Amino acid sequence: MNFYERLTRRSRETDSVVCVGLDPHFGRMPVAEIAAHNLRVIEATAPYAACYKPNFAFYEQYGIDGLRALQETVAAVPGDIPVLGDVKRGDIGSTAAAYARAAYEVWGFDAVTLHPYMGLESVRPFLEYPDKGIFIVCRTSANEGATDLQESMLESGIRLYEAVANIATTWSPIIGLVVGATAPAEIARVRALAPDAPLLIPGVGAQGGDAGAAIRAAGHRPGSLLVSSSRGIYYAEDPAAAAIELRDELRRASARA
Amino acid sequence: MNFYERLTRRSRETDSVVCVGLDPHFGRMPVAEIAAHNLRVIEATAPYAACYKPNFAFYEQYGIDGLRALQETVAAVPGDIPVLGDVKRGDIGSTAAAYARAAYEVWGFDAVTLHPYMGLESVRPFLEYPDKGIFIVCRTSANEGATDLQESMLESGIRLYEAVANIATTWSPIIGLVVGATAPAEIARVRALAPDAPLLIPGVGAQGGDAGAAIRAAGHRPGSLLVSSSRGIYYAEDPAAAAIELRDELRRASARA
Repeated sequence: MNFYERLTRRSRETDSVVCVGLDPHFGRMPVAEIAAHNLRVIEATAPYAACYKPNFAFYEQYGIDGLRALQETVAAVPGDIPVLGDVKRGDIGSTAAAYARAAYEVWGFDAVTLHPYMGLESVRPFLEYPDKGIFIVCRTSANEGATDLQESMLESGIRLYEAVANIATTWSPIIGLVVGATAPAEIARVRALAPDAPLLIPGVGAQGGDAGAAIRAAGHRPGSLLVSSSRGIYYAEDPAAAAIELRDELRRASARA
Repeated sequence: MNFYERLTRRSRETDSVVCVGLDPHFGRMPVAEIAAHNLRVIEATAPYAACYKPNFAFYEQYGIDGLRALQETVAAVPGDIPVLGDVKRGDIGSTAAAYARAAYEVWGFDAVTLHPYMGLESVRPFLEYPDKGIFIVCRTSANEGATDLQESMLESGIRLYEAVANIATTWSPIIGLVVGATAPAEIARVRALAPDAPLLIPGVGAQGGDAGAAIRAAGHRPGSLLVSSSRGIYYAEDPAAAAIELRDELRRASARA
């Protein structure tokens, strides 16, 4: 069973599209406590989680000890819940192959996020792991002109992020796309261009995205959608309650969609 | 003295624009031998190196042991030679801040490579380290449609990689750009758009780039250019001789430029 099939099954069984971000922000806890905190979050939220998503940067910033905590964290996720490594790698040739090896064989991720800028050659080594999943960064939520490039209008009459959606979906029969929660119009546009692509939608909660608007724009079908919350669940006094709250908000939005 | 000043001084003192890639390809040696191999390469090539460039992927693929070898490697580079971490990160907000912390405070790099796709917000945390340097991925050497996106023609009449060169140079008074050695026409175009930007040109040697053509396109001024060779020096029977050969080839090309 490949990643997308696993994700679909998990999402259906839990009636949840909640992706729980596991992102230890610097200074919030000593590195020695990260793995134990993550294990508590995983234990509390597992019944409501379609997927877990550790972000590599938050472990790498703690050096070797942080990366050991990442390994412990991935190992602690129950086998029926896929783990998406938010690594946003993008390089070519033997470097891309090395990143794929690291993501899948060292850290044990079931899927990764990747940058589109260097094209198919940067994605192909990841495709050589047929059981694994890929989400291409397409249209992100951000301030400070972060979407200047993504919104660039091409001569062909579409915007760059639309071209990314078009090209990425030619790279593989199934490939996911990352679209920020604060951009529901763009989510709808990406969904129109890539009807079958699993969409990873980060940025609900702390980053200001409206989960309901996002899910209405993306559609709600098991395996075709992951809505990721990081701080809102990870630092909640009661992570289970926070996960249930988001799951239910997304269920209500999908019922209205 | 910031990274660009250090690079300029080093390049002037050695009359070299050679950037020595330190990239242990998987299976070429046991992980336990990587640090010792790197130390030999560094010792042999230091008189001819303007810069060293370890590529993060090649260490990450070996897991914790590989990343320890990376730390030993960076620590072994003489203090007057800058170390450019080829990490190609690209993310926003607190994630970008975590990647900057990792690159500069955990691994000890003096400069990094970054993706442009998520814009200024993804670069700003790196700019908050004023002594460090940044090279934005602009136009890469590649096959398999890897330049499909980069070559996209925008409505404004320029190509995407040209827009990246234009935007990136607004992000900071000095910012570097990555332009592949196999694309001399594009190097010349980027140089025209960004006359003062340090250019990192990977892909000579094993990847088929013509170092002479690259340097003629880029111009040759200390601190404004780094030509990176990885396999050609790193795996040479005599790394010093290989570094001298590349240095001299680049000197001859610059004399003709």
